[in-house]
Amino acid sequence: MSRKKNFFAGPSVLPVEVLKEMEREIANYNDEGLSIVESSHRSEPFNTMYSETLALLGEVMEIPEGYSYFFLGGGGSLQFAMLPLNFLNPAKGATYINSGSWATKALQEAQVIGPVATYWDGKDTSYTTLPAVNTIKPSPESSYLYLCSNETIGGVQWKEWPECGIPLVADMSSDILSRSIPIEKFSLIFAGAQKNMGPAGATLVIIKDEFLEHQNSSIPSILDYRSHQKSNGLYNTPPVFSIWGVKLVLEWVKRNGGTAGMAQRAQLKSSLLYDAIDQSGGYYRSPVDRDYRSTMNIVFRLPSEELEAKFLAATKEAGMVGLKGHRSVGGLRASLYNALPVEDVEALANLMREFQRVNG
Amino acid sequence: MSRKKNFFAGPSVLPVEVLKEMEREIANYNDEGLSIVESSHRSEPFNTMYSETLALLGEVMEIPEGYSYFFLGGGGSLQFAMLPLNFLNPAKGATYINSGSWATKALQEAQVIGPVATYWDGKDTSYTTLPAVNTIKPSPESSYLYLCSNETIGGVQWKEWPECGIPLVADMSSDILSRSIPIEKFSLIFAGAQKNMGPAGATLVIIKDEFLEHQNSSIPSILDYRSHQKSNGLYNTPPVFSIWGVKLVLEWVKRNGGTAGMAQRAQLKSSLLYDAIDQSGGYYRSPVDRDYRSTMNIVFRLPSEELEAKFLAATKEAGMVGLKGHRSVGGLRASLYNALPVEDVEALANLMREFQRVNG
Repeated sequence: MSRKKNFFAGPSVLPVEVLKEMEREIANYNDEGLSIVESSHRSEPFNTMYSETLALLGEVMEIPEGYSYFFLGGGGSLQFAMLPLNFLNPAKGATYINSGSWATKALQEAQVIGPVATYWDGKDTSYTTLPAVNTIKPSPESSYLYLCSNETIGGVQWKEWPECGIPLVADMSSDILSRSIPIEKFSLIFAGAQKNMGPAGATLVIIKDEFLEHQNSSIPSILDYRSHQKSNGLYNTPPVFSIWGVKLVLEWVKRNGGTAGMAQRAQLKSSLLYDAIDQSGGYYRSPVDRDYRSTMNIVFRLPSEELEAKFLAATKEAGMVGLKGHRSVGGLRASLYNALPVEDVEALANLMREFQRVNG
Repeated sequence: MSRKKNFFAGPSVLPVEVLKEMEREIANYNDEGLSIVESSHRSEPFNTMYSETLALLGEVMEIPEGYSYFFLGGGGSLQFAMLPLNFLNPAKGATYINSGSWATKALQEAQVIGPVATYWDGKDTSYTTLPAVNTIKPSPESSYLYLCSNETIGGVQWKEWPECGIPLVADMSSDILSRSIPIEKFSLIFAGAQKNMGPAGATLVIIKDEFLEHQNSSIPSILDYRSHQKSNGLYNTPPVFSIWGVKLVLEWVKRNGGTAGMAQRAQLKSSLLYDAIDQSGGYYRSPVDRDYRSTMNIVFRLPSEELEAKFLAATKEAGMVGLKGHRSVGGLRASLYNALPVEDVEALANLMREFQRVNG
């Protein structure tokens, strides 16, 4: 089969080996005479698959003792609400760093629950940069400090983590598994699976057990992290297929050097495009502050919207999909998630040079 | 391959044709050069699949004008919380009929949000029966009347629907698509996909647009039905694989006579087991009131727990899975969801007779 070169921002590309394994196993899992998606979440085939997934995740992400982790349904957007419902103390408020579209969504959901202080807002720079970590000093009373590790729409990415004396919470939906994370610096991390980790439908939550002790009471059980922690993520029927997909992706990540290998790949792939941009003499422009350029989502512009449309048509012609920039920022965006082959990025970089040669 | 006879209560059996189609298409959807689970939910392959799914659902379930419907993540359990968050008016309360385990869970979540009146409680009969529909007279002020159409654990099922002058809401997770539903009698219906409709991960919500006008304000957007209705179910990344699975199941349901065909199958299959029980001279016993016996989940006991364990071992030997009763009620349970072949139920009925002959 001729594979598309898949630059979608999410749901996005999966490793071809993972798809092949799904193809082999989807109708008859492990020769059990049924599909994994036909197995009760209280059955042996599911339980084995599930515990292997969690063990692998703990290993690949090096999750330390004192943390619980599990997969929930409802997407990262549900976490935007669950987080403040559980942890925003109305007397103390919470602090959000507004780095762009996704942080804004999280912040707006929190505002429905209680008082929110925006510590820093990238609005004046159209969300093209981030604050230096050592300048971040939220109120020591604040319930937590929230950040989004990588903004898929703006293309900015945190490179270091603030140490600010209050619980640190991060949405890592769009760069999870793309680098090593010092989990111990965080009280809660969540990440939708559908970019770097697997098929849409599962959201990973990693939570410091100690943090759970500060949890608000009187919220519905399904929205209460304690219910999920106590039942090891099986409080209700889990998104079975997505979790299985995460397992297959984790095996692939492990075979390919773990998070260190993924970081290397991400560095290599993003450099291919940033170099093409930087060496174009201004023909291609990245609006993002060099210090915070995302390795996952490369946002760039051409000299005119007409040329952008023409460029987009050329990528389509070349079997590439997903390169149209988000409507809120325009231009082009290449999402280079873990599973995207290096050759696909090389093809795009070559196309950029060739397009400039002809249309420059 | 030798297929298991799959009596799991959910996630459960899918039509073998659906699994074959998944096998054919999972790595290269529709010859697009990518998987459907690699396609952005803003892309053409997804959009076509999604709109076909919704159209098919409207057709198969005969959903009338004035209703919106979409799939959410988070499972039926999330609906237990979303429903009262959206519609339980704290000044008026809501009315719940407690038919067993699943109604109890819904009721407990609602109690966190506001006042709940339990109109009827099956506790005294160990949840083996239901109230006659014409006796149900909730307070006319109540925000809504809630029922669970089929209790998977107790094995009781509503056969008619109350007409009580207030909005009627139903959890139909375990018997959706097993019979024709007069949607116009309901203000809101929800159903987890993982029993009769497809793989776990998606929950169908059907909502009367008029009902949405009575919605509570000031809840996080992700929990607000209006956000999902306005964006046609694409407020956030949907559970792509599960929705695709629902589409394939709907096509299978349509090919097999629609909901009328499914009702006939359900009648036939459940009769095979109820007859085996009723004709056993008391060897097998169903605790459920005959008027409300579920066509989906057949709960039964043997003369002793020892015989139940032996029977369970015999089913395992015969390639059957999922027949252990829920730990809260004990005994045996056979879940006969739409996709379970009639022959598998015949095999179980035969095994019941043979087991009695040898061990009776």
